[in-house]
Amino acid sequence: MTKPAKDKLIIFDTTLRDGEQSPGVTLTGSEKVEIARQLSRLGVDVCEAGFPIASQGDFEAVERIAKEVGPLNLGRASGKPMVICGLARAVPADIQRAYDAIHHAPHHRIHTFLATSDIHLEHKLRITRDECVARAVAAVKFAKSLGCNDIEFSPEDAGRSDVDFLCRVLGEVIKAGATTLNIPDTVGYNTPEEYGSMIKHLVRNVPGGDNVTWSTHCHNDLGLATANTLAGIVNGARQVEVTINGIGERAGNTSLEEIVMAIYTHPSTYPVHTTIDTYQIYHTSQLVTKKTGMPIQPNKAIVGANAFAHESGIHQDGVLKHKQTYEIIEPAVVGIPSNVLVLGKHSGRNALRSRLTQLTKDTVYEDVLKRNAAVFERLFVAFKKLADTKKKGVTDTDLYALLDDQMNASDSGFETFVFKACQVVSTSGVLATATITLVDKTVSPRATSITSLSASEPEDQNGTTPTETDANPGVERCDAAIGHGPVHAIFNAINRIIERTNVLASYEVKAVTEGSDALGRVLVRIQEAAPTPTSSSSPTADAPPPRFHDPVDSTANLPYEQQAETFQGQGTDEDILVASAKAYVNAVNKMVDAQARRAKSGTKDVNGTDGAPASRKVDV
Amino acid sequence: MTKPAKDKLIIFDTTLRDGEQSPGVTLTGSEKVEIARQLSRLGVDVCEAGFPIASQGDFEAVERIAKEVGPLNLGRASGKPMVICGLARAVPADIQRAYDAIHHAPHHRIHTFLATSDIHLEHKLRITRDECVARAVAAVKFAKSLGCNDIEFSPEDAGRSDVDFLCRVLGEVIKAGATTLNIPDTVGYNTPEEYGSMIKHLVRNVPGGDNVTWSTHCHNDLGLATANTLAGIVNGARQVEVTINGIGERAGNTSLEEIVMAIYTHPSTYPVHTTIDTYQIYHTSQLVTKKTGMPIQPNKAIVGANAFAHESGIHQDGVLKHKQTYEIIEPAVVGIPSNVLVLGKHSGRNALRSRLTQLTKDTVYEDVLKRNAAVFERLFVAFKKLADTKKKGVTDTDLYALLDDQMNASDSGFETFVFKACQVVSTSGVLATATITLVDKTVSPRATSITSLSASEPEDQNGTTPTETDANPGVERCDAAIGHGPVHAIFNAINRIIERTNVLASYEVKAVTEGSDALGRVLVRIQEAAPTPTSSSSPTADAPPPRFHDPVDSTANLPYEQQAETFQGQGTDEDILVASAKAYVNAVNKMVDAQARRAKSGTKDVNGTDGAPASRKVDV
Repeated sequence: MTKPAKDKLIIFDTTLRDGEQSPGVTLTGSEKVEIARQLSRLGVDVCEAGFPIASQGDFEAVERIAKEVGPLNLGRASGKPMVICGLARAVPADIQRAYDAIHHAPHHRIHTFLATSDIHLEHKLRITRDECVARAVAAVKFAKSLGCNDIEFSPEDAGRSDVDFLCRVLGEVIKAGATTLNIPDTVGYNTPEEYGSMIKHLVRNVPGGDNVTWSTHCHNDLGLATANTLAGIVNGARQVEVTINGIGERAGNTSLEEIVMAIYTHPSTYPVHTTIDTYQIYHTSQLVTKKTGMPIQPNKAIVGANAFAHESGIHQDGVLKHKQTYEIIEPAVVGIPSNVLVLGKHSGRNALRSRLTQLTKDTVYEDVLKRNAAVFERLFVAFKKLADTKKKGVTDTDLYALLDDQMNASDSGFETFVFKACQVVSTSGVLATATITLVDKTVSPRATSITSLSASEPEDQNGTTPTETDANPGVERCDAAIGHGPVHAIFNAINRIIERTNVLASYEVKAVTEGSDALGRVLVRIQEAAPTPTSSSSPTADAPPPRFHDPVDSTANLPYEQQAETFQGQGTDEDILVASAKAYVNAVNKMVDAQARRAKSGTKDVNGTDGAPASRKVDV
Repeated sequence: MTKPAKDKLIIFDTTLRDGEQSPGVTLTGSEKVEIARQLSRLGVDVCEAGFPIASQGDFEAVERIAKEVGPLNLGRASGKPMVICGLARAVPADIQRAYDAIHHAPHHRIHTFLATSDIHLEHKLRITRDECVARAVAAVKFAKSLGCNDIEFSPEDAGRSDVDFLCRVLGEVIKAGATTLNIPDTVGYNTPEEYGSMIKHLVRNVPGGDNVTWSTHCHNDLGLATANTLAGIVNGARQVEVTINGIGERAGNTSLEEIVMAIYTHPSTYPVHTTIDTYQIYHTSQLVTKKTGMPIQPNKAIVGANAFAHESGIHQDGVLKHKQTYEIIEPAVVGIPSNVLVLGKHSGRNALRSRLTQLTKDTVYEDVLKRNAAVFERLFVAFKKLADTKKKGVTDTDLYALLDDQMNASDSGFETFVFKACQVVSTSGVLATATITLVDKTVSPRATSITSLSASEPEDQNGTTPTETDANPGVERCDAAIGHGPVHAIFNAINRIIERTNVLASYEVKAVTEGSDALGRVLVRIQEAAPTPTSSSSPTADAPPPRFHDPVDSTANLPYEQQAETFQGQGTDEDILVASAKAYVNAVNKMVDAQARRAKSGTKDVNGTDGAPASRKVDV
């Protein structure tokens, strides 16, 4: 008797929706597209790309992903492109907006949600149970009426809902056309037994439940997300909602990598298989870390630096010997690059190109390198400089860092300010002095007398702002400032040149590799000091809505709405002061870019129509 | 009918043994004592303090903990001091050595282990099953013969052992006197179902199993350590082996904080209670992070920066509102300090003292502050400097950082080198220059012509080396060096002054608080470049055994033995270059201290007698 074929487990990644709700994380549109491309390459089945109603920026990002990533099929074991999913509350405006964003993708899904617990019905929504059923059914029917046949429904706060009522609501939405039912452990406090039993009960008791896909959505507040999700699978779930590195609200969501590798290492325990390309796990994890600025601790399962006791090249040999007695996952299976020296100071263009071709094969870097000869030339210069510095030679890890640094432009791919030079004099106990030179592309050499950003045509709002004329070589601008320590001085000098002050939300330096001649990578996050009107034609007191704020709702009870938008920047250099300057300029470019887009789109932000205003922060 | 009283769950913390096996982590004796004190304060029931046979340093650390921490009973809800536990292989020399170290504590335990899987018996130990039983029984009997009545036995690789043989071995060790049986999931790949079933089977089938305490020991390779441990509890385990922050080999051990809070939040699910003081969790977590240099990711359950969406003061208000609808653990319950401004530039000594008294109440800092007026004065100077810099005011988080910086001396509490001043000139694209001034206490002002470390009386080996005359004001020494970037230049200049070269194993900077005027904390780890003979009377080729190497075993198959010893250093300052210099000097002082101790203890390291030499790395 042959074993029955295993069910396919659908990997639903919500790094770009729930993951992006991590405190302090904001991804630009281009960053979201880059991550979505990599998720496609990783083999993710459904990509929840965002919450289109939340803001114009969110809408555009989901739309771009649907158009640019939706059709991709490169290296996918499933043989078909990702389903692109948009989140929507159970109201027509949300669902329409989600559909408008996602329908460009060959495969697309609307994910709509409504709370079903009495506490939410009474205190938040102020509707009866009957109205709840009616609204859920109407939402699914409306989604279907748009021509969407892939519809997911989530009963928010399912864990505290009356189980008989839950069965009734879910049975009705199935009849209305829902194809996937997702059961969120919103509060993150279920135990595996509780969560598994809930899934089992629903699968058995919801009318029509055997014709739909059941899905898990767990949070890690007690460190149990992975176990809860696996308990869901054992009890009938065939879709799991996960994020890369387990990022997300509070202690985060279930980690994609932990679920995939738990199933990989226990082929006889779980009744499912995935079509994830495990060799892409590490690269995806690193990309998400760099773009979100959310670090991974060394003892994080699967993707932490120590996960395979594989801290540095020295230990590889030991790990190989150790493996004979203790069975662990082969680091290469999750795509951990070797830290072996690959190139030296005498390596030329061909050696670099050949190694890069191997390294970037099937990754998002591949395309950029092929199309853009200038990127390769910049990389070669950076590589030669590094090879001269590092006596021991250049490793794959170094090359990845250089690649990142070259690829890391602003949202539009255009840099408004380019770091040129930095000089620092710093004496302990005395204020430090920094002199910074940037190339400012807001002005052209013909107009060198213009020294202020605000001097650039304020009435120009039709999309051809000066920042978009790429051929402009710009003008070198130099200024100096003092500070408490060299980094403070550098940021102050940059602020003088760019004529803004920013709030530094976080600052972090890490040596990329070992040794005092290693590359240092600086990650900064900045916030706008105050919402400055970017379009000078509407500087009235109530007009300019910061991107994620809802102008009609200053008393919303969801905490992250109050946050100013945050921009991550990164910079890599042997000199951490230069890396700091690069990182800060990188963040500033993203901020300028967002402000230009915001000015362009004006007040187009769409609000919800059910009294509870749209917010990027939802608890599903 | 009243509910039966819940069983007490014994919290066995192995942060100082298994946690210290994290790649790259080495704690000095004083750091271990400081952590042990805090574990006592936290309410840990059993503290596994180390593996005394591994080296003289390990022995001394366990002995100090037994003597200094063993009797402490401050704030312990259990009403009695911690049991101090030492690890030992199942051989007399190990057990004797463990007993010699721990017996000073009022409550002490010997933890002995032996592999029981056929693969280990055949390939590693080369003994039969009968010999395995005999050796395990002999080990427990020997421990008992020393007068120790608290004996724990672990069957290594239990998961791959024949279950009937396992029952036989465990039954025999119970008869011989073992009081706790610990079941390690050495490989870290069990699922909760598998692990729970194994515990259940053993509890039911091992003869005498109802008279002993069953214990769990899980690793987190698949993110399942917490769930596995809870499955063990449900199936009869009444002791859990855990570490703070889940540190440990590879992806680490089960997190103490996750288990404690899972039980706390599910009082009706688990049949046990703990006597952990949850209010001490956050402080303990921070202490272990700083001492080990192992960072915690923001989305780490319970102790991560985002765990309660409590990223900064701005959000506290939102969190409070949020709590009405979504039930989460109150941050204060796990001791998260408020980030509210508490002191300003006009605050004086009284205000600082009063806030410090509140902050350090019942912590390891309290005692030091009370006894040492100089520490308070240094703190006050640092505080005034910071208050001048930070326009917004000084927070509790800042004060904790300052406290740490002041408390962070070398192992002996004596600093051989003291950072004095630093000047850096750095221009991008050009080598940086650093000028460093240190106070060198290896020489006294009377002997200013001595400029080299090796010039200090080489024949003096009786414990009165010049580094131990504390009253010596030392001599200022200044040197300059170039480097690729300012940090490289600073480290090179320090190396010139101290006349050593070190390998920089890791380098990390983090802003302690928000804003560009925040304090920066630098963590470095350095390794000795080559084993330099510290006693000039024995510089022969084969003589000086690096502390954790086993001189007779250059082919051991355990990977970490090959590692040179690593020393962590930290420094905090508004200027990250000054913080870098301080951190490097701090690490150098610890290295010098360890070398002096090593020279003093000579070749006293004791080796195992069963052919498998002692190693600090064990897989239990």
